[in-house]
Amino acid sequence: MPNNKNLNSELVPLYPLLYDEAVRRALLEDLARGDVTTDAIVSPEDTAKARILARAPGRIAGIAVASHVFHCLDPGLQLDVLVCDGNDAEANETVVSIQGAARPILTAERAALNFLAHLSGIATATRDIVALIARHPARVVCTRKTTPGLRVLEKYAVRAGGGSNHRFGLDDAVLIKDNHIVVAGGVAEAIRRVRRRAGHMVKIEVEVDTLDQLDIALNEGIDAVLLDNMPVKMLAEAVRLARKRAITEASGGITPKTAEEIAATGVDLISIGWITHSAPALNLSLDVDF
Amino acid sequence: MPNNKNLNSELVPLYPLLYDEAVRRALLEDLARGDVTTDAIVSPEDTAKARILARAPGRIAGIAVASHVFHCLDPGLQLDVLVCDGNDAEANETVVSIQGAARPILTAERAALNFLAHLSGIATATRDIVALIARHPARVVCTRKTTPGLRVLEKYAVRAGGGSNHRFGLDDAVLIKDNHIVVAGGVAEAIRRVRRRAGHMVKIEVEVDTLDQLDIALNEGIDAVLLDNMPVKMLAEAVRLARKRAITEASGGITPKTAEEIAATGVDLISIGWITHSAPALNLSLDVDF
Amino acid sequence: MPNNKNLNSELVPLYPLLYDEAVRRALLEDLARGDVTTDAIVSPEDTAKARILARAPGRIAGIAVASHVFHCLDPGLQLDVLVCDGNDAEANETVVSIQGAARPILTAERAALNFLAHLSGIATATRDIVALIARHPARVVCTRKTTPGLRVLEKYAVRAGGGSNHRFGLDDAVLIKDNHIVVAGGVAEAIRRVRRRAGHMVKIEVEVDTLDQLDIALNEGIDAVLLDNMPVKMLAEAVRLARKRAITEASGGITPKTAEEIAATGVDLISIGWITHSAPALNLSLDVDF
Amino acid sequence: MPNNKNLNSELVPLYPLLYDEAVRRALLEDLARGDVTTDAIVSPEDTAKARILARAPGRIAGIAVASHVFHCLDPGLQLDVLVCDGNDAEANETVVSIQGAARPILTAERAALNFLAHLSGIATATRDIVALIARHPARVVCTRKTTPGLRVLEKYAVRAGGGSNHRFGLDDAVLIKDNHIVVAGGVAEAIRRVRRRAGHMVKIEVEVDTLDQLDIALNEGIDAVLLDNMPVKMLAEAVRLARKRAITEASGGITPKTAEEIAATGVDLISIGWITHSAPALNLSLDVDF
Amino acid sequence: MPNNKNLNSELVPLYPLLYDEAVRRALLEDLARGDVTTDAIVSPEDTAKARILARAPGRIAGIAVASHVFHCLDPGLQLDVLVCDGNDAEANETVVSIQGAARPILTAERAALNFLAHLSGIATATRDIVALIARHPARVVCTRKTTPGLRVLEKYAVRAGGGSNHRFGLDDAVLIKDNHIVVAGGVAEAIRRVRRRAGHMVKIEVEVDTLDQLDIALNEGIDAVLLDNMPVKMLAEAVRLARKRAITEASGGITPKTAEEIAATGVDLISIGWITHSAPALNLSLDVDF
Amino acid sequence: MPNNKNLNSELVPLYPLLYDEAVRRALLEDLARGDVTTDAIVSPEDTAKARILARAPGRIAGIAVASHVFHCLDPGLQLDVLVCDGNDAEANETVVSIQGAARPILTAERAALNFLAHLSGIATATRDIVALIARHPARVVCTRKTTPGLRVLEKYAVRAGGGSNHRFGLDDAVLIKDNHIVVAGGVAEAIRRVRRRAGHMVKIEVEVDTLDQLDIALNEGIDAVLLDNMPVKMLAEAVRLARKRAITEASGGITPKTAEEIAATGVDLISIGWITHSAPALNLSLDVDF
Repeated sequence: MPNNKNLNSELVPLYPLLYDEAVRRALLEDLARGDVTTDAIVSPEDTAKARILARAPGRIAGIAVASHVFHCLDPGLQLDVLVCDGNDAEANETVVSIQGAARPILTAERAALNFLAHLSGIATATRDIVALIARHPARVVCTRKTTPGLRVLEKYAVRAGGGSNHRFGLDDAVLIKDNHIVVAGGVAEAIRRVRRRAGHMVKIEVEVDTLDQLDIALNEGIDAVLLDNMPVKMLAEAVRLARKRAITEASGGITPKTAEEIAATGVDLISIGWITHSAPALNLSLDVDF
Repeated sequence: MPNNKNLNSELVPLYPLLYDEAVRRALLEDLARGDVTTDAIVSPEDTAKARILARAPGRIAGIAVASHVFHCLDPGLQLDVLVCDGNDAEANETVVSIQGAARPILTAERAALNFLAHLSGIATATRDIVALIARHPARVVCTRKTTPGLRVLEKYAVRAGGGSNHRFGLDDAVLIKDNHIVVAGGVAEAIRRVRRRAGHMVKIEVEVDTLDQLDIALNEGIDAVLLDNMPVKMLAEAVRLARKRAITEASGGITPKTAEEIAATGVDLISIGWITHSAPALNLSLDVDF
Repeated sequence: MPNNKNLNSELVPLYPLLYDEAVRRALLEDLARGDVTTDAIVSPEDTAKARILARAPGRIAGIAVASHVFHCLDPGLQLDVLVCDGNDAEANETVVSIQGAARPILTAERAALNFLAHLSGIATATRDIVALIARHPARVVCTRKTTPGLRVLEKYAVRAGGGSNHRFGLDDAVLIKDNHIVVAGGVAEAIRRVRRRAGHMVKIEVEVDTLDQLDIALNEGIDAVLLDNMPVKMLAEAVRLARKRAITEASGGITPKTAEEIAATGVDLISIGWITHSAPALNLSLDVDF
Repeated sequence: MPNNKNLNSELVPLYPLLYDEAVRRALLEDLARGDVTTDAIVSPEDTAKARILARAPGRIAGIAVASHVFHCLDPGLQLDVLVCDGNDAEANETVVSIQGAARPILTAERAALNFLAHLSGIATATRDIVALIARHPARVVCTRKTTPGLRVLEKYAVRAGGGSNHRFGLDDAVLIKDNHIVVAGGVAEAIRRVRRRAGHMVKIEVEVDTLDQLDIALNEGIDAVLLDNMPVKMLAEAVRLARKRAITEASGGITPKTAEEIAATGVDLISIGWITHSAPALNLSLDVDF
Repeated sequence: MPNNKNLNSELVPLYPLLYDEAVRRALLEDLARGDVTTDAIVSPEDTAKARILARAPGRIAGIAVASHVFHCLDPGLQLDVLVCDGNDAEANETVVSIQGAARPILTAERAALNFLAHLSGIATATRDIVALIARHPARVVCTRKTTPGLRVLEKYAVRAGGGSNHRFGLDDAVLIKDNHIVVAGGVAEAIRRVRRRAGHMVKIEVEVDTLDQLDIALNEGIDAVLLDNMPVKMLAEAVRLARKRAITEASGGITPKTAEEIAATGVDLISIGWITHSAPALNLSLDVDF
Repeated sequence: MPNNKNLNSELVPLYPLLYDEAVRRALLEDLARGDVTTDAIVSPEDTAKARILARAPGRIAGIAVASHVFHCLDPGLQLDVLVCDGNDAEANETVVSIQGAARPILTAERAALNFLAHLSGIATATRDIVALIARHPARVVCTRKTTPGLRVLEKYAVRAGGGSNHRFGLDDAVLIKDNHIVVAGGVAEAIRRVRRRAGHMVKIEVEVDTLDQLDIALNEGIDAVLLDNMPVKMLAEAVRLARKRAITEASGGITPKTAEEIAATGVDLISIGWITHSAPALNLSLDVDF
C-alpha cells in the first residue's frame, strides 16, 4: 500500500532544540574568528538577494536547519522556501530565496549548504531506493551507521526520502546481532537472556544467517528477524517461514540493482546502511543576485 | 616530486583534545540510556577478543579516534593496531585487534566503526584520486565542504590519503569567490578592498571564471587563483598565464575521469569537494572471536 | 517467578560517561569558588579515614556515582565498598570506607551523599513495594516522572531496587495517553495513526479508562494497555479481557496499601510514579575517624 | 513578626539564565530523538487548549521554569498564569492555562510538569512546616542537601514556601561541622584557623553537640551556632546561653511533630534537610480540552 | 598612508555567536545563585535610567558585548549608544545610556563593565601607540599573548584601536620561532621542513635574531621576518636587506618611548604583546539617575 | 600582625575541576585545527628539555594551571617546579623545567604562558602593594573587577600575592553600593530592606561617601562599611567612628603612592580593583635547551 510507504506528505518537522547545538558548532567550526574575506569586502550596510539552487535534481531535506544557520548570524534575514522538505527539486530549481544583509548571507553560506546538501543527499538516495521497490509492500529502513553527531538529522532525512527509521540507538529496541550470539553461545540462549531482562515495551529482533537459526529464533517467539546477507532464494524461504510469526528484515549489501528482487520476496523491511553513511551530497549552490 | 605529494609517511597525529568532544557526543547519541541488548546478554565479567576487519581494500584513517571511543567506555581495553593511519588495508585484513571486557567492546562497536569507516572512506577516495595524477606535480586539496562538526577530523583524513588541506575555515585565508565579486562589483575592486584590510599573514586567492578575470586578478598581484569550471584548454592557457605570478588551483566537478588531463595542464592544485562530502564509507566490521 | 522479578543479583553498572557531566555539575554547583571552611581548617597534607554510614536501613544505589564525585576532586582517594548497589544496608552499617587526603573527602562529602542518598531512597522505595507484591507475578515499573537531569540514574536506582523500567523517553516506545486520544478524537483513530507511522521496532501501549475503550484497543491489536485509575474489580475484569492479547499495566495512585490487591488481579505491570518523584532520600552520613 | 517570616509576597523571580541549561537538559533527556507518539497522532497544524491542574492542594513554585520548557519547543505558545509562584492552589484548581499548537504542548508536558511538581512539592513542604511554627519568631531554613543540579531552583522553591536559605554552597559562608572539628582537634582550634584565613565578609557558624562545645564556641566569638540533634531541654538551655552572642540554629531530624516545641525554645533558625531532599512532588496534571 | 592604518571608520562588528558563551559564562560566574543585595533592595517593578560613563578619556571597544550582557538578563532593556566602538570618549562623557527595569541593570552592571573596561583598555593602549608612529607607514599588530578565553574579543579591540591582527592561533599561519629553530637545527632546515608540509594558502614568517639568520631566511624565500629584539641600527639594516623580499616585523619590548624610532626604520609592522596582555582597563562606571 | 596578613605559606591549591574548562577553552582557542608550524617542523618522536624562565622578578601564581595546559596535550610530559605559587622568582630564574615530547611542549607553550604570566602579574601587583603597607594591620583585598571567565583563578592569584578576597560574586555577601542607595531612597532604607530579606549567614556592607551616611549606617548595625574615595583625613575620622562597630574598608583609586597613608588611618581593609583588572602580565618565556 503506497500510502503506508510514502510518508513525505506527513513529514513532521524537528524542533530546533534538537539541532541547535549542531548548528552553532558548525558555524563556530567555520568562522571561529570571523570571515576575513567577507568582512574585508562587504559592508555591514550592504544588502543582497540570493538563491539556493539545486544543481542536480533531488529530494530536499534540511531547509529548517539551513535556515537556522542563517538566523544564528542574523535573525533579520528573510527566507522564502520554494521547495519544502520531502519534496523534489529539479536541476537548477530555486529551493530557497534569501533577502537581507549581504554579510551574514555570505558568511553563513557554506555551513548552511553543508547541512542542506548532506541531508538532501540522504533523502535523495532514500527516495531512489524507495522508488525501485514501489510495487512491493516492503519499507526501506535506515540503520545506526550514521555520521557521528548527526543521527537525529540523518534519520529525519531518511523520512524525508520516504524511508522509515530502525532503532535510533542502543537503548530503544533489542537487536541481537552475530557478536551477541557468539558471546551468549547460541541464538536461543541470547534470546532467553534478553527476555529475562528487557523492558516490556522493548521489541526483540534477532540477526540470523541460516534457516536453522531462523527456526530457533521463531520458536523463541521474537518480534522481528534480521535476515543477513542471504541469497535471494534463501531469503524467500525465510520470509515464508516467518510469515505471521515475526517481522522480516533483509539486510547486507543491498544495492539499487538487487533491491527489487529482494523486495519481491515479500520481506517486510529492507535495511540499508549506505543511505546514511555513503549517500553523496546533493549538489547545491548559493548565488547572489545583486 | 612524489615526496612532496605523498605525506603519509609523515602523517602527524591529532591531539585527542581536538576530537574528545566529538567522540563523547557520538557515544551519548548512541547509548544515552544504555545498551539494552548487550546489557541483557553480556555479563560485566565476560571477556572477549575482537578484530576490526576491512571488508574492502582501502586507506585507513581514524584509528586513534576509534580507540578513544572504546577507551571512553573502558580505559582497560587493549587495542593492537595492525594497520596504521595513512596505510592501506587489504580486503579482510585485520586493522585493529581488541581484547578485554566484552560488554564495552560490543557497546562501543558502532560508534567506533562509524568514525573509522567515515574517515577511512575519505582517506581512500583521496588516495585514489592522488594516485591518478601521480605523474604530475599537482596536489589534491580538499575544501570547506565538510560534514558539520567533523571538519578537523575530515581534513586529517585527507592528509592520511595523501592530499593536502586548503583553508580550514573562513578565518585563515582570503578566498574571494564569485558572490564576493558580485557584491564588490568586480574582481579588481574586491581584491583592493581585501588588500586594504586583510592581515599581513593572510594569503589572497581569487576565483576567476574567464581569462579576462584572470588577467585582472594577476595584475592586482594576488597569491593564488581558483580557476573554476574551466574547459581543459582554457585551464591550460590560464595556467600558462599565471606561471610564476600566482599559485593555480583547478576546481569544479573534477572526477576520476577528468583528473589526469586537468593535472596535465601543470596546474598546482586540484581541489575536490566530494572527497570530504561524498566519499562512501569504507566497509569495516568488528568480529568477536570468543 | 521470583527470579524474573528480582534483578538485583544481575544489576549491570552504568558507564561513567553517562553520569560524568551530572557529577561535575553537582560539584561545581557546590564549590564553584572553593570550600572556605575546609580550606581554612584542613591542610592539603592532612589525611583521614572516613566512613559513609547508613543511618536508616535501606537498599543502596549509586556507589559508583558517589565514588566518581570523590575522584573528580582527588583520583588518589581509596574507596572500599562494603555494601554494593542492589544490596541492603542495615541501620548504622558502613557502606563505603574512604582513605586519603582529608581535604577532598570533606569537600566532596555533600555532593557525594546527595547522589547516594537520593538514588538509595529510590531503590529503597522500589524494593519495599516490590516486596509487597512478591507473591504475584507483576513487575513494578517506573515512569517518566523523574527529577529533571537525573533520569538515567533514577531508572538505574529503580533496577537496583528490583523494579523494571518503562519508557526512558518520548522516543523509545509509543504510549498513547488520554490527551492524545482527545486530540485524535478516539482510541481507534489514535492507534491507527500510530500504526501508519511508527517504526517496526516500537511497541504500542494505550491508556484506557473504561472497559469499552479497552475493547476498542484490543481490537486494534496493540502491544500493551495502561489501565488507568481503575477500581480493583474493573481492573481484574480488564486483565481477564486482555489476557494473551496485550500486556496489562495498572497505574494511578497505587500505594503500599493497595499494591497487593492490585497485583492479585494478575496484572503484568504496576507502574508507580512516586518511586522516582517522591521517594524520601535514604539517611546517610559521612563520619571522619581520625 | 510574621512579616519577617512570610516572604511570599516579596518573592523575587529568577533570571532564566539561571535555569536555561537545566531546562534544555531536561527536554533533551526526554525527547532526544523526538516524541514518537505525538508526532504520529498530532498534526503540526492542530491547536489545543490545555490546563495544568493541581490534583492536590499545595504551594506553587516553578511556573516560569515550566513556561520556559514549553517555550523552548514553541515560543508561540500562550500561557496564562492563574496561580503565581508563592501562592496556594486548591485541589483541582487550574494553575496555568495554555493555548497554541497541540504538538509542543503534548511533547513538553512531562518535562514541564516534572519541574513544576518537584518545586511545588518543596514549596508545599516548606509552607506546611513554616505554618506549624507561625507563633514563634524562628525561621525555617533549608540546607545543602539538595538534588544534584537543581540547587538554585530548590532554594528558590523554599523561598516560595516562606522559608529562608542557608548557605548556597561551600563558598559563601563558613560552617564548621563535626568532621572539621575532628580534623582540627577541637572546636576552638577550628574556629581560630578559620578566623586566620576567612574573608572579612564571611560569617562563621559552628556545629556543636554539647553545651561545653557551645561555651567554647561562644567564647571564640562566632556568628552562629548550629545546635545539632539536641534534646529540647538542652536546646532551650543552649539558646539561653547564646542569646545576644550568636544566632542559634536547631537541626537534626526535625519533623512536623517536633517543630513547634523546638521553635518554642526561642531558637532563631530551624534547618530542615527533608524539605529539599525528600519532599513529595505536588500532584499536578495537564489536561487537554479540545 | 593614514587611510591604510586607521581602520576605525571601517570597524566590522562581531557576530554575537562569537561571544555569546563568554558573556553567559561571565554572568553565571558573578551571579550563579542570584544577586542578594539587589534582590533585597530593588523591586522587580522598579525602573531606572542609568549611564555608563568614561571616568578617563579613552578609545571605546565592546559596546555590543556589554549590551549583550544586559540583554541576557532582560531583553527589554533599552540601550542608547552615544560613543560607538572605535571612537574616543572624553573624561566623564556618557558612553551608553540605559533605561528599563532597575533590577537587571544593577545586577548586570559589573559583568558588563568588566568586558567594556577590559576591551576599551586594549583599544586605548593600541590607539596611543598607533598615534605615536602616525608619521610612518608601519602598522601596529597584536600577538597571541592574549587573556585565555577572550582572544577573539581582544583582537577585535586591537582593531578598534586602529591596530591590525597578527595570527589568531597556531593554525592560520606559520611563524617559525627560536624554539622551532633550535629543534630543527637551524633556520634553513626549519624553513625547508615547513615548505614541504604547509598548505598553499599559509604564509611563512621566521623569527631571526641576527643579520646572518636574516640572510639565510631571505635566501629561502619566506613571506615575512620577525626581527626580534634588535637594536635600532641593526633593525634598520635588516629592514634595508629585506626590502621587497619579505614583510618586516619588529618585536621585543617595544614601548611608547621606543616606538617612534623603530617605526622610523621603515619596518612594516611593529608587534606588541602588552597591548593585549597588560593594557590597564579603562576607568568606567555605571551611574543610576533615578 | 604579619602572620595574619601574609598567607603565602598557607596557600591552598585549587582543584583542577575549577579550571579544567578554562584550560581546554584556551587550548582550543589557540590550536583548534592544529599547530601548522610545529607539526611541520617537529617530529612526534622528537624530545626536548625546556625551561620556563622569569624574565623579570615577580611573585609566581598559576603553576598548576600551566601544568594542566601541558598535560591536556600530553599527560606524559614531566614538569619540575622550581618556584612554587606564592613564592618569588628573580629575573632569569627558572620557574619550571619540562621534559618530554618536543611537539606538545611547543604547541602548549603560549596557552600555558598566557595563564602563568597573567596570574603571576596579579600576584606580583598584589605582593607589591601588600609590602607597602606591611607596617600596618590593614589587609589588601580584591574586588569583582576581574577578567570575564577567570575570576576564581584571579582571586587565587591575589591570595598568592598575600592579599585577601572580598566577595566572589553577587551571591555570597551583601554590598549596598551607591546605586542601590539611589534606588532605595537612602542608606537606612536600603539597609532595612536587606535586613528583612537577607539570609542569616550573609554579612552586610554599605558604601558610604560621607560621615553623615556613615553615621546612619553604623546606627543600623551593619557588619562593614566601604569608605569610598574619602580624603585621608575624613577616612581617618570615619575609621575612628566605626571602631568596634564595623569593619572598615577604604576604596577608590588607591595607588602605591597613597596606600601607606591610607593604611596608616587604621582602616581594616584596602580594596583595590587594579590588582586584578590592570596588573601587567609578568614577563615569562619558555626556552628549549636541546
